[in-house]
Amino acid sequence: MAEDRSGQTAVMFISERTGDDPEGYAVAAAAMDALAAEQPGYRGVDHVGSAEGQAITISYWADEASAVAWRKHPEHAETREMGRGRWYRWYMLHVAEIGRSYSWARP
Amino acid sequence: MAEDRSGQTAVMFISERTGDDPEGYAVAAAAMDALAAEQPGYRGVDHVGSAEGQAITISYWADEASAVAWRKHPEHAETREMGRGRWYRWYMLHVAEIGRSYSWARP
Repeated sequence: MAEDRSGQTAVMFISERTGDDPEGYAVAAAAMDALAAEQPGYRGVDHVGSAEGQAITISYWADEASAVAWRKHPEHAETREMGRGRWYRWYMLHVAEIGRSYSWARP
Repeated sequence: MAEDRSGQTAVMFISERTGDDPEGYAVAAAAMDALAAEQPGYRGVDHVGSAEGQAITISYWADEASAVAWRKHPEHAETREMGRGRWYRWYMLHVAEIGRSYSWARP
């Protein structure tokens, strides 16, 4: 909360799941969350999922190079293939550089 | 789906609601969605909300100037004040320029 992320690289991942294999998905998602958090340049994540299987995950990175390195990580690439094979109906991904951040919280 | 948003400005809005006044919130949210879509430079939106009241909304704009103009729109500013007064526990907002977009869909 309340973090200024100016200058960080955001990777927006917008997806819809097939609904197949929810247990396998959950195990893989938790493993990927943990592995991402260990990567150089990792700065955090925001994730919201709906009951209907749509989700938006935004991961934050120190710079574009660290985001690209995570994309190329062998375990991540392997899990991505499983995602295409089974868990996802579609996804979109946008890589962006954050120029400004605001936050507000109830006093 | 499958849109290349390279060069667009993304406004990431990450929020948690108080749970107060869900009907008022729903009416205002629908009105803001409709009004945003009429603004110059509007390019689309992705939104996911959870049952627990967390949400991520990403709106896409032709450029930073059109995103800033929407932020300053009088009706939007008025609704933002109502959001702070009643509907939101906290929110974060990041403005970013999209450098690269990918998408994938099940064949």
